[in-house]
Amino acid sequence: MRRISESTIKRLSKYYRSLEHLINQGVDTVSSDQLAEMDGVTSAQVRKDLSFFGTFGKRGLGYNTRTLRDQIGEILGLHRRWNVIIVGAGNIGRALAAYQEFQKRGFDIRFILDKDPRKIGTTIHGVPVHDISRAAELIPKENIEIAIIAVPADSAQAVADTLVEAGIKAILNFAPRSLKVPEGVHIKNENMAIEIESLSYHLNKNQ
Amino acid sequence: MRRISESTIKRLSKYYRSLEHLINQGVDTVSSDQLAEMDGVTSAQVRKDLSFFGTFGKRGLGYNTRTLRDQIGEILGLHRRWNVIIVGAGNIGRALAAYQEFQKRGFDIRFILDKDPRKIGTTIHGVPVHDISRAAELIPKENIEIAIIAVPADSAQAVADTLVEAGIKAILNFAPRSLKVPEGVHIKNENMAIEIESLSYHLNKNQ
Repeated sequence: MRRISESTIKRLSKYYRSLEHLINQGVDTVSSDQLAEMDGVTSAQVRKDLSFFGTFGKRGLGYNTRTLRDQIGEILGLHRRWNVIIVGAGNIGRALAAYQEFQKRGFDIRFILDKDPRKIGTTIHGVPVHDISRAAELIPKENIEIAIIAVPADSAQAVADTLVEAGIKAILNFAPRSLKVPEGVHIKNENMAIEIESLSYHLNKNQ
Repeated sequence: MRRISESTIKRLSKYYRSLEHLINQGVDTVSSDQLAEMDGVTSAQVRKDLSFFGTFGKRGLGYNTRTLRDQIGEILGLHRRWNVIIVGAGNIGRALAAYQEFQKRGFDIRFILDKDPRKIGTTIHGVPVHDISRAAELIPKENIEIAIIAVPADSAQAVADTLVEAGIKAILNFAPRSLKVPEGVHIKNENMAIEIESLSYHLNKNQ
């Protein structure tokens, strides 16, 4: 399989959602034109993205919505459940613990790690909070595969190092700092201020 | 100016942060190689991204960190402050109201709109909550330029329509649904489940 860009993967996630929407509406077949329209891309882009994974659907007949949804789901790893933890029980960590979209997509938030003795032993939106010093013990024991970092910028790298040492291979980082991880560990930096800057760029340009 | 891709804008935000980091460390000059290394891209990419805006720096001498930071800041609209609101005082909305990185970058959260009478009239992390029915009055009055949508998926499109009608030209959407806005309105969809799916894709692929 050729190397697939991050933007292709992101679009696959969108196609997956559009297909779910169509299936919920009782639609059995969809063309690349329709998918393109739903996701604001060109139909050539849709066909190119799907071509990475071999031929789905038949020319002129469109794609079967369920088959395509399931095939994209398998590519994205949505055909199974994933054990996820959140590190940091602050505002962002607490909000993410309550974010139902994760659970709905197969990402189970198993526990939260924090260093604050007042939080350890409590539950947040039903998710237990454990001492971060137990990372090396709990992560392998509970088969945790993905960690979400939601700690302040200054402690984020140290947290990432701890997680990697405990065996974590995938990190979603909400701390506003780029983190270094060894090769073989996947990291996505999620910086909400950077997202808003793309809006101020556009507004600024038009002034 | 040529049309600049969203990924270029995102990288500019990253260069901006790296330059701030260098300035804080007392570094006066930086090469495209160094910036590239800090942000995990190639130096050709750095030079290409900066070339969109004309020539900064001199060949062989590198860039002055303060000048380049300020120039990128002006491009991104970070040389001024922006009036921002959050719609939805749920878990995500509350966490965003407390997210200091916004304020630090010039994005002032002026108020929160919600429809829940128990929340209206209260403050969340110091930010007042107003009735969403007052959107058409408050948005122009307070010169609100950017709105962050943090409401459930089902009500997100109606909220977006209300905001656009009230004059909002830029929306950061955290609801897990793609929203339609008229031409001339900028929208960024921030779907945290989609981000995590790029991690499950990579983990899945390696199994």
